Amino acid sequence: MNSCVLFALTIVRKIRTWYYTFIFKRMLHSYGSLGVNSFCKVSSTARVDVGYNFSSNGLTISGLGYVRIGNFFHSGTNCKIMLGSHDYDNGDAIPYGTSYISKQVIISDFVWLGSDVTISGNINIGEGAIIAIGSVVVKDVPPCAIVGGNPAKIIKYRDIDHFNNLKKENKFH
Amino acid sequence: MNSCVLFALTIVRKIRTWYYTFIFKRMLHSYGSLGVNSFCKVSSTARVDVGYNFSSNGLTISGLGYVRIGNFFHSGTNCKIMLGSHDYDNGDAIPYGTSYISKQVIISDFVWLGSDVTISGNINIGEGAIIAIGSVVVKDVPPCAIVGGNPAKIIKYRDIDHFNNLKKENKFH
Amino acid sequence: MNSCVLFALTIVRKIRTWYYTFIFKRMLHSYGSLGVNSFCKVSSTARVDVGYNFSSNGLTISGLGYVRIGNFFHSGTNCKIMLGSHDYDNGDAIPYGTSYISKQVIISDFVWLGSDVTISGNINIGEGAIIAIGSVVVKDVPPCAIVGGNPAKIIKYRDIDHFNNLKKENKFH
Repeated sequence: MNSCVLFALTIVRKIRTWYYTFIFKRMLHSYGSLGVNSFCKVSSTARVDVGYNFSSNGLTISGLGYVRIGNFFHSGTNCKIMLGSHDYDNGDAIPYGTSYISKQVIISDFVWLGSDVTISGNINIGEGAIIAIGSVVVKDVPPCAIVGGNPAKIIKYRDIDHFNNLKKENKFH
Repeated sequence: MNSCVLFALTIVRKIRTWYYTFIFKRMLHSYGSLGVNSFCKVSSTARVDVGYNFSSNGLTISGLGYVRIGNFFHSGTNCKIMLGSHDYDNGDAIPYGTSYISKQVIISDFVWLGSDVTISGNINIGEGAIIAIGSVVVKDVPPCAIVGGNPAKIIKYRDIDHFNNLKKENKFH
Repeated sequence: MNSCVLFALTIVRKIRTWYYTFIFKRMLHSYGSLGVNSFCKVSSTARVDVGYNFSSNGLTISGLGYVRIGNFFHSGTNCKIMLGSHDYDNGDAIPYGTSYISKQVIISDFVWLGSDVTISGNINIGEGAIIAIGSVVVKDVPPCAIVGGNPAKIIKYRDIDHFNNLKKENKFH
């Protein structure tokens, strides 16, 4: 009976993944291939291009602007990309008016976001970067850097030789 | 058909806003005017006064104490105000006893909280302050300051002349 | 009628607590006694031992490894313990391969976590420590320390004499 339950759970998960992936695809401007295991959402003010092998357990993209996510992107649960928002210094009212600033987030290949990560503003994230759980990223992240904290700072770098060797051997996933 | 769907969505949103606003009003001690687009909640141990044109996409007020929110307050989603909690240094048990400390949060006019902001403890937030996404505010915020991080620190100030001009011209929203 | 509503609410709460406690117990390796008021969850890759008088309003334990939680543990809502994850520096693919690192979190007696606390990695939390709301704990916390921030740092210490006196008098809860 236990194997029956496991089998049923597997089926339910597959249907859920298919459903979330189907919904998310409709919100993207373009995509290579993707599989998402939890609800992912893009606000109608954001244009999003996604590469090959996008894999996420929950990503919300909001605000005004553009996002490009490279190939082999992985994210944990409850991640957020916050693009442009109210232009408080040039608006026609306080605390903010009706004018918006557009922003863009460029995420290179092989980037891995932990859970509860927020990326806010005009941000470039370099190839192979790793963002630790709970980070709020408010400035650029260099390639292969491991960042954490709010605001996120560089903690260390991943083994760059190891990374480049696997890249040369086409060992991606 | 697309316009039909949009119309239906607009109606649903209006009903939802009316419903959330209705519930939230019942939890407040006094209020000027308000419109909330998502579930807002006040714990029974908090007394809350709200000014004119309160607008929020999600605010939870918990703990023991008092909150005054000025006019033209705006907040993003998932914001929290945490008032007084267990008095661990004078209690009758460990890790904490049955005694509580009461705290108060005073938010001036024209304050804008981004999403996922937490305000904790005895805090005064000055007029026109902006709190960045994901911040945890544990000390006072001066007028027109833009703060971010956990703990939140001053990043910069908004254009104070621009702010004061719009204020003189009564350009609020 | 008001007292009727209150009575009904009390019953609902009792049933809910019993239900959440029942589910959580099944996910633990061992436990002394516990009562949880909200959904608590342990991933199948984590082995968790819990002491006496565990009390939580929401705790999620994920990743690979071991957690020991001492007696008289209290936590707010939406707390997380993140154990071992992908071994990015020794894996067989990028951004990470199939190999995992196992980690362990040891929480001593009388520890109190505020809401939205995340504990990540190999962490020891000393007796009587208090973790402030929204903290992300990435290094060890000494006994009776009060820590906060992301990354969490020591803010101050609780009254250690007061703590030790109550401990000697067996005034726990």
